[in-house]
Amino acid sequence: MKVSLNQKILSRNDDFAAKNKAYFRRRGILCLNFISSPGSGKTTVIARTIGALKGKLNIAVIEGDIKTDTDAQKIRAAGAEAVQIETHGACHLSAEQVANALTLLNSADAKVIIIENVGNLVCPSAFDLGEHRRVVVLSVPEGDDKPVKYPGTFAEADVVLINKIDLMDYLDFNLERVLADIRAVNPDAVILQISASTGEGMQAWYDWLTKNAGAE
Amino acid sequence: MKVSLNQKILSRNDDFAAKNKAYFRRRGILCLNFISSPGSGKTTVIARTIGALKGKLNIAVIEGDIKTDTDAQKIRAAGAEAVQIETHGACHLSAEQVANALTLLNSADAKVIIIENVGNLVCPSAFDLGEHRRVVVLSVPEGDDKPVKYPGTFAEADVVLINKIDLMDYLDFNLERVLADIRAVNPDAVILQISASTGEGMQAWYDWLTKNAGAE
Repeated sequence: MKVSLNQKILSRNDDFAAKNKAYFRRRGILCLNFISSPGSGKTTVIARTIGALKGKLNIAVIEGDIKTDTDAQKIRAAGAEAVQIETHGACHLSAEQVANALTLLNSADAKVIIIENVGNLVCPSAFDLGEHRRVVVLSVPEGDDKPVKYPGTFAEADVVLINKIDLMDYLDFNLERVLADIRAVNPDAVILQISASTGEGMQAWYDWLTKNAGAE
Repeated sequence: MKVSLNQKILSRNDDFAAKNKAYFRRRGILCLNFISSPGSGKTTVIARTIGALKGKLNIAVIEGDIKTDTDAQKIRAAGAEAVQIETHGACHLSAEQVANALTLLNSADAKVIIIENVGNLVCPSAFDLGEHRRVVVLSVPEGDDKPVKYPGTFAEADVVLINKIDLMDYLDFNLERVLADIRAVNPDAVILQISASTGEGMQAWYDWLTKNAGAE
């Protein structure tokens, strides 16, 4: 009973994901789904990216949060359009919520749409939103055991951003172990070391994004 | 349909929670349910507590993780019995899993059982495990906006441990804001500032625990 209902929910989600994917294809938009623990720095990464690529790459953002629209406000302050989805307790975004948000976006010329999922390293990874690429953010203070403890999430990442590397000196974080553990479940992921607050390492991320948006 | 099934799952969970609660009552055990984001330092808090209270308070631990038993190994290294539950993808512990784990615990003289839930600031808060007190850990690097973004989890905490305060100097973290936002949804929670790695502030937590276990 539980299984068949979950399959029903997932199958309904997949229908909307396929519609979203078709929407992105028709408009030539690259869509990214950002997944991480709460507080890994997703919003800061996205806001800094918007500022750095202003005039070169038009980015719009769909923000998922259980409550508040503070992240959407930060994105708007960085200079991009943002639509906020409040999930009111739900632990992940659904493709249907994203489909509704797409009808509210005005940016006719967006080349990239970034979906910032609810802060949760588990549930969002089970729901395809129609994105082209999945970006998992792991911040140094979370600890070097996260890839081995949450292998499913890391296995499905196209890009892993290891964020807050400026805090590496103050913490016991074995980078070699993290890289090996990600590689063990996901040999193909692009892994970049960044600090969204200092800017260190961000250029490689901008280059990846610009190239994948076909805007080189 | 969705709602009625969720109610069925929750009602089944509540049956097991009531059985767990009766088990703790019969044996005079204080049970705590630790909830937080991945990487907030739950395991380090628990391991340090075990070491500090050795000989004074007998603590046993039930560890919840999606995968691996590394946390249970850390608890055993600190000198306490630990039973590991691997949820294999599930984003929270259920009362039934805890009931099964209780049958595996040998410590006949444990006065405190700590359940370390799956690292997830959302889903575990919906599931009563039969605990007496809920402890939510928020680490400084996660940011000062977490209580307002995850109000449901903070509203149900009996204790909030603000961990990694040794990193406060390196981060932009407005402590006054965090305290006010927790108070806004939960006027009664005990809020303690700690660093489980340096030991700062831990004595107040040990005092709370010893008092609530009736072991003063």
